[in-house]
Amino acid sequence: MYRPEIKVLDCSIRDGGLINDHCFEDNFVRAVYQACSLAGVDYCELGYQASKKFFSPDKYGKWKFCDEDHIKKAIEGIKSRTKLSTMVDIGRVEMDKVAPKKKSVVDMIRVATYVKDIDKAIDMVNHFAEKGYETTVNIMAISTALQPDLEEGLAGLAESAAQAVYIVDSFGGLFSEQVHFLVDLYAKYLKPKGKEVGMHAHNNQQLGFANTIEAIRKGANYLDGTIYGIGRAAGNCPLELLLAFLKNPKFDLEPILEVIEKEFLPLREQIEWGYIIPYMVTGILNQHPRAAMALRASEKKDKYAEFYHGLVHGD
Amino acid sequence: MYRPEIKVLDCSIRDGGLINDHCFEDNFVRAVYQACSLAGVDYCELGYQASKKFFSPDKYGKWKFCDEDHIKKAIEGIKSRTKLSTMVDIGRVEMDKVAPKKKSVVDMIRVATYVKDIDKAIDMVNHFAEKGYETTVNIMAISTALQPDLEEGLAGLAESAAQAVYIVDSFGGLFSEQVHFLVDLYAKYLKPKGKEVGMHAHNNQQLGFANTIEAIRKGANYLDGTIYGIGRAAGNCPLELLLAFLKNPKFDLEPILEVIEKEFLPLREQIEWGYIIPYMVTGILNQHPRAAMALRASEKKDKYAEFYHGLVHGD
Repeated sequence: MYRPEIKVLDCSIRDGGLINDHCFEDNFVRAVYQACSLAGVDYCELGYQASKKFFSPDKYGKWKFCDEDHIKKAIEGIKSRTKLSTMVDIGRVEMDKVAPKKKSVVDMIRVATYVKDIDKAIDMVNHFAEKGYETTVNIMAISTALQPDLEEGLAGLAESAAQAVYIVDSFGGLFSEQVHFLVDLYAKYLKPKGKEVGMHAHNNQQLGFANTIEAIRKGANYLDGTIYGIGRAAGNCPLELLLAFLKNPKFDLEPILEVIEKEFLPLREQIEWGYIIPYMVTGILNQHPRAAMALRASEKKDKYAEFYHGLVHGD
Repeated sequence: MYRPEIKVLDCSIRDGGLINDHCFEDNFVRAVYQACSLAGVDYCELGYQASKKFFSPDKYGKWKFCDEDHIKKAIEGIKSRTKLSTMVDIGRVEMDKVAPKKKSVVDMIRVATYVKDIDKAIDMVNHFAEKGYETTVNIMAISTALQPDLEEGLAGLAESAAQAVYIVDSFGGLFSEQVHFLVDLYAKYLKPKGKEVGMHAHNNQQLGFANTIEAIRKGANYLDGTIYGIGRAAGNCPLELLLAFLKNPKFDLEPILEVIEKEFLPLREQIEWGYIIPYMVTGILNQHPRAAMALRASEKKDKYAEFYHGLVHGD
């Protein structure tokens, strides 16, 4: 029997925005939210609530800031039970400027953090929870976290307002046994406090979907996916595979396939993501994809062997 | 500690040949064999030994037939410890025309079979083993095999000359728990007779590499991969990911990355394989990819939602 507790979150616009500086057209955002709504996806994440004090709207598109008016305009008239989510980075948001929930269409705010900043993340989720939002904490670069630090952080998070804490495999470096270990470790601290474990996987080693399944098997109930796997570098767990795997009859795959053929195929001609060898290389080396992203923006974009050699044998 | 028993077989040319009727240029085959040799891959499979009585050399390229002279010419002068393998399909080979091993550069012959034809496959591997070849049996479409039939077949194979028997997930429909179940079932019959379990995974659900890892975890020691995942429809477990995962110091990833950038990127512009939604659709439905292949050859190649709807709700 399927697990009704499972929540699927589509972060196509938010993680995909890391490829194009969050410059999606309203029509595209609208199509994604419409598809998620028809497909029965629980949450749809549209971007970051970054501060314009730190980031210029001249350089970044509107989904870097997620102004209330912009969101309302994009989703206007769409009948939906899909909740809206935004993400905030530590030190990049002016918390006081975030409206209380009752004045916002946003339902959930997710705080992205590294292990070392978990205490700051706890302050933030508590603040947003007081304002009436659902909240989660997403621990990035988890494949490089040291266990004692992580356990200390999880113990703190267990006492926070966050309803779920995510494993974020930012580098796409995890294998199934490590996913099993991490879900168990998270659950040990979180489940007794009624909090859920989440999984956000990257696809550098073509393990995004596989690792999400392994997290499900171990009890993770908050699952991130993106349509056609869109997302920075190698991208994410493809939402279409995840929905096809899940047995809850509320999910419908067809609207997702439709938005892929109509919106994501043309977009993929403009911007790139997915299984591209330099991203695979940073994945197998358990590194941030930034060196691979720099390579892909250079004339040496397809010099795979040289790139690998440099990372392994270089300084 | 790594398992020295593990054997990696590259079947890029053989499975890739199913995309282009086995019409690879000698230079390409040479580059693949050279890369496999430098990378420390154990076996390289070049094609089928099909009979020209049943298939016309006007329609099919030389790697459908693997004439001794053609193989020798393609690999001439390459220093290598990588053994050569070919595949045969039941009813499509004239066994008497296959030379004895001592007159051939081929080291191993793999017999592809469905569960219902295992008895025929046993006759064939025994025949080829008598001629001096290493042999395996590869059981196709395993995700639709009924367990009693499969167990009867495995019991027979345990008494055959085959040194390994493969799980072949032709439809890319398996999940990790099913892989675990199948490796255990195979091992129950085969390991007591000193035979190994093999894994040949397809990538329709982006699980080709993940399922190969799960098979390894359960004890499978014969592992198929293809360079850049080339292979019919969604393709196979990418060899580059598999080699990066395996710990045996004899493997070197760099030659594989080099042949990808030099040979596979240009080829991918000519012929298609990989994660393409119609192949994902047949994978989630646990079906042969032929409907998806027909779609991709038609004007409706990107009508994903309609294709899915037709398979689920059609006749």
